[in-house]
Amino acid sequence: MKLRSLWGSGVWAALTVVGGSLLSSAVQADEGMWPFDHLPKAALKKKYDFDATDAWVAHLRKSSVRLANGCSGSFVSGSGLTLTNHHCAQDCLSRLSTPQQDLMKSGFYAKAASDERVCPGLTVQQLGDITDVTARVQQATKGLSGEAFHQAFRAEGARIEKECATSEQLTCEVVSLYHGGLYQLYQFRRYSDVRLVFAPELDIAAFGGDPDNFNFPRYDLDMTFLRAYEDGKPAVTADHLRWASTPLQPNDLTFVSGNPGSTERLRTIAQLEYLRDHALPDALIELAQYRGFLSEYAERGPEAKRFASAELFGVENAFKATRGEREALLEPAFFRRLVQAEQQLKARIGSKPEWKSKYGGAWAAIAEAQAKAAAMEDELKWIEGGFRPAWAKTSLFSWARTLVRGGAERQKKNEERLEEFADARLPQVQQRLLAQRPLNQQFEIAKLTFGLTALREHLGTDHPFVKKVLGKASPAELASALIKGSSLDKPEERKRLWEGGQAAVLASKDRMIQLALAIDAEGRAVRARYENEVESVLTKNSELVAQARFAVYGMTSYPDATFSPRLSFGTVRGWREDGKWVPAFTTIGGAFERATGRPPYALPKSWLDHRGQLKLDTPFNFVTDNDIVGGNSGSPLVNRQGELAGLIFDGNIHSLGGSYGFDIARNRAVAVDARAILHALDVVYGAQRVSAELGAKQ
Amino acid sequence: MKLRSLWGSGVWAALTVVGGSLLSSAVQADEGMWPFDHLPKAALKKKYDFDATDAWVAHLRKSSVRLANGCSGSFVSGSGLTLTNHHCAQDCLSRLSTPQQDLMKSGFYAKAASDERVCPGLTVQQLGDITDVTARVQQATKGLSGEAFHQAFRAEGARIEKECATSEQLTCEVVSLYHGGLYQLYQFRRYSDVRLVFAPELDIAAFGGDPDNFNFPRYDLDMTFLRAYEDGKPAVTADHLRWASTPLQPNDLTFVSGNPGSTERLRTIAQLEYLRDHALPDALIELAQYRGFLSEYAERGPEAKRFASAELFGVENAFKATRGEREALLEPAFFRRLVQAEQQLKARIGSKPEWKSKYGGAWAAIAEAQAKAAAMEDELKWIEGGFRPAWAKTSLFSWARTLVRGGAERQKKNEERLEEFADARLPQVQQRLLAQRPLNQQFEIAKLTFGLTALREHLGTDHPFVKKVLGKASPAELASALIKGSSLDKPEERKRLWEGGQAAVLASKDRMIQLALAIDAEGRAVRARYENEVESVLTKNSELVAQARFAVYGMTSYPDATFSPRLSFGTVRGWREDGKWVPAFTTIGGAFERATGRPPYALPKSWLDHRGQLKLDTPFNFVTDNDIVGGNSGSPLVNRQGELAGLIFDGNIHSLGGSYGFDIARNRAVAVDARAILHALDVVYGAQRVSAELGAKQ
Repeated sequence: MKLRSLWGSGVWAALTVVGGSLLSSAVQADEGMWPFDHLPKAALKKKYDFDATDAWVAHLRKSSVRLANGCSGSFVSGSGLTLTNHHCAQDCLSRLSTPQQDLMKSGFYAKAASDERVCPGLTVQQLGDITDVTARVQQATKGLSGEAFHQAFRAEGARIEKECATSEQLTCEVVSLYHGGLYQLYQFRRYSDVRLVFAPELDIAAFGGDPDNFNFPRYDLDMTFLRAYEDGKPAVTADHLRWASTPLQPNDLTFVSGNPGSTERLRTIAQLEYLRDHALPDALIELAQYRGFLSEYAERGPEAKRFASAELFGVENAFKATRGEREALLEPAFFRRLVQAEQQLKARIGSKPEWKSKYGGAWAAIAEAQAKAAAMEDELKWIEGGFRPAWAKTSLFSWARTLVRGGAERQKKNEERLEEFADARLPQVQQRLLAQRPLNQQFEIAKLTFGLTALREHLGTDHPFVKKVLGKASPAELASALIKGSSLDKPEERKRLWEGGQAAVLASKDRMIQLALAIDAEGRAVRARYENEVESVLTKNSELVAQARFAVYGMTSYPDATFSPRLSFGTVRGWREDGKWVPAFTTIGGAFERATGRPPYALPKSWLDHRGQLKLDTPFNFVTDNDIVGGNSGSPLVNRQGELAGLIFDGNIHSLGGSYGFDIARNRAVAVDARAILHALDVVYGAQRVSAELGAKQ
Repeated sequence: MKLRSLWGSGVWAALTVVGGSLLSSAVQADEGMWPFDHLPKAALKKKYDFDATDAWVAHLRKSSVRLANGCSGSFVSGSGLTLTNHHCAQDCLSRLSTPQQDLMKSGFYAKAASDERVCPGLTVQQLGDITDVTARVQQATKGLSGEAFHQAFRAEGARIEKECATSEQLTCEVVSLYHGGLYQLYQFRRYSDVRLVFAPELDIAAFGGDPDNFNFPRYDLDMTFLRAYEDGKPAVTADHLRWASTPLQPNDLTFVSGNPGSTERLRTIAQLEYLRDHALPDALIELAQYRGFLSEYAERGPEAKRFASAELFGVENAFKATRGEREALLEPAFFRRLVQAEQQLKARIGSKPEWKSKYGGAWAAIAEAQAKAAAMEDELKWIEGGFRPAWAKTSLFSWARTLVRGGAERQKKNEERLEEFADARLPQVQQRLLAQRPLNQQFEIAKLTFGLTALREHLGTDHPFVKKVLGKASPAELASALIKGSSLDKPEERKRLWEGGQAAVLASKDRMIQLALAIDAEGRAVRARYENEVESVLTKNSELVAQARFAVYGMTSYPDATFSPRLSFGTVRGWREDGKWVPAFTTIGGAFERATGRPPYALPKSWLDHRGQLKLDTPFNFVTDNDIVGGNSGSPLVNRQGELAGLIFDGNIHSLGGSYGFDIARNRAVAVDARAILHALDVVYGAQRVSAELGAKQ
């Protein structure tokens, strides 16, 4: 399942997918990722005879959470117990692991409440109020363009969010729906003390590994239990999901509540063509090279393997997801449908002079901005992006940049800052910056060497920025000097510099800080150029396309996914593949049949030891035709009664086209069955402290 | 410069680039890779006042050679002395290197004639007679289609080549020009004893490495001297190029004689779209991953670096070339021109009922075959291709397959064999099979693990072929068992099995032989399906398109490149890049200015030591607007007098679009200046035995 790291994604998302909006005129049955305040209740009643009462909806919404790392989850007890995917907690498991104890390998179980361990930097957010702020945003930017537009837009967002975020426990976000057709203020309750309760071994959490990823049949126990704390005690979570009391069956109605990361179903054709021909293949090429590097780096030894594997998991996942997305766009019939939808909308707009003069120019403006974006993409990516591919994470540099920019930005007025340093965002920035993350020096040097080599390759040996960064040093020399010359791996040093502000940063002799300072101006310049000349044009014209769509079709559909809470509905069912029916359920016994004893098809010892006690016909994984996408990882799947019946962790290979459109015949969401979770907790892991808390009967 | 390994390329070339033909109606000035028997003499006379007399042409042709490994070269003395690129001799340098002496690093100079060392497996071919066999080939296949067409086509080719190759010293090839518009029989004199005379250090041969590859200004001494032997003595080569006696100047007329590997300028749009959207990006993704693997594998230690670097050079070169080719096809204006040319030709064909009925259906037939090829591509690539990406060379498996198939095929009649085992090809097959190639076991295991992992990923864990190959083993386990269980690394064992034929092969307990036997039937089946259902359709209809082109435009143009000898002409000149003029020449002094002391910008010690004696203003590299492409590496560049004035080793970044069309404003060939070669031999290397033999005056 594709995870999207959403931090700092503003520029990056904009880079690959810029602005725009286009409505497919007819929504297929069960298609849609619906905002909780805009559910198709009539359709649900008609098709499923289901009443989505306000109470039912509110309970599900409040029981659902968003993980700030790009995942979803749900409260499953009144004491803050939170269910999500194993792959959503891998960052936590890695941070808590040591050379002596690898929690990814061994799994984790807090036998007593006091054994629960803080996940560094992890927060859980629960959606509270939603307020429409469209008028405010549009009023603030009225008549403006370019830099003025961008500054007004950013300033108004910062203002609105600050007014809302009245305590550290509240996170507020202005969410742009329909690419600017609608702006809403989402207020989240923020839990910043999240602890690890239970995780199985990676071998069963991701059984089948990369080869089986996005495939089905599957046999994965991709789950982890966390717990939200308040004031050092388990949070009181009155709204939480009960464990399903009736067994899930084929054709049952199912709901998925979660935070789909992003879809591009309303983009213009110019934007989709750019994705198909440039952005996606370029990403695939970069991911592939980094993947080759990481998989071989892992062979250096056990510690190398531990660090590289954690990153490899995300890289392989992103690679496979991106490949699937591109393949969908390359399917001629599929793309033709998208083209026809745009032509239809444009024809309708062209038929009415009033519409035409108001909205008619938006598509061309977007295409032009798109071309401009393409021309500045390399510099934006490599200079403002921090001289390495987005995938090759270099925490030391990210921290250095946060410290350098945070120091400078916090001296400005809230409305004038770079958006990521607006007041409402600072608690999250600070938590992330100060959270402990063990680094492996050798791995950091190898990654940075890879990154600097790529920088030189992409911008060219003779580019002034490359000369400034590298000087006469080789990438390996510079990487080594930077990593060894930095103390930012120590949280207390980061704390000192964050609290010391700009003065402390300017006085620092830290090599990474000095580099971040040296290239700050270049990065800001290319970013400003992008924001003023491209982003503002895209935002403005995407709003126009959204309004054009509302004018023609009314507001009958759902907005593209934006990692904000949504509800999708569907039914449990298999699909036809190459003429054969793929059944909806697998069983625990199937895992034993598929096992070869070699990773990624090696079952952990705990499972082999308890084979005799396991009910092998227990449903393990299953598929539904719910419309989901990356970001939905960890989403609860509930039945009519609103009870937790499954845990979303993946989609089938066809679901990857879901970024651009939904094909109910083949797109399937993949979930862990609630019965398998309970059975494994009790039989394999003896984790009765957890299973008892779920209050479920087996 | 892109090297194309042309052995066994039939299927692979067909895979990515299948059949077809389309003539651009007007040839630009100086565009073209002209067959020696079809030169545009009138145009040369008119534009340059140059008389390409028969004697001048014949002398240049006979002085030029083809290296069987995919390169070009020239005789530069009467005693078989052969000049080619360093990168064309790297395979030889690697094979002759040991852990104690790395010839890539140190270079090589045979101080005495007796020090010259045999390059294992390397052959040099000199073009002799050309005979038109179009009528014979077309007669043999007349009225046939599918399997019958393919068999008749292959049988007639085997017959023609066998009749021609009357001794082991002759290599004969039926060359398809204009994609079947013309079939010619090329007879080559074959020198199978080729020895290493002189090579500089890699650090100066490829100064600037991958970052500067396909760029200019450049400072590379990318040259090697070999020598062709006959009966254990230096070959007598009456036809050879004299060293230029007059200094080359901007705007001088230049000729490049060599073997451009392949171009796709006459392909149909359906084929180019497939390349642009599928074949090229897929290749880039695979190359990128393998590149990431290799560059990190090199960090395992000095021996790992030695083996991995040799392969990395080719992989990075192919990656950069392929990326440039794809970028050319993605340029809207460029592609539009290609589309218009096809539309124009089709319109002309449609205007005459007789043409229409004869040729009109060819484009649709090619498009249909192309779609069929796409559908079977994965299985063809992974099953017949030998369960690993084409780039991840596994010599042990290649040898095993040659032994298994060679054993079986040699029992059949010449006309009924797989084409690569036809009688006329056997001397070359045998030489390649038996040539010594030192392998590093750890590297072979790592590469095969990479390959088997990729196989499982691409066909899927549940594909019957994957199950058959892997069983319950992991890729790493199987790779280790296969490599350690094979003795094919010993040339004498390969010799025993080759000479023992099928009986010896079937009796062998060698693990790699057993695997090659076990999967032989699957590979042959998918290959036959491809040849009968796709290749035969493409061959047949490409012939029709070629004939259509002749009918409309006459035979006024040059055929696509096919790694057969061609002549191009042009002039020495720079080009305008981003508004600035890039001068045509660099000097030796420029290398010292660009050097940082760190690879790939580290000059070798020999150069640093002799800096004082070097004339720093000696021209080093230069560019011309000759129309060249990969395969031209090592080509002699001659002046009006037919004297050697330069040595082609690269093209600029724009030249990569040359696969699909020629843009004289920007496409440039890059060469080493003959003066730099001579100066370095004398001053840096004290290699007077070589420079004296060139008979040149400094």
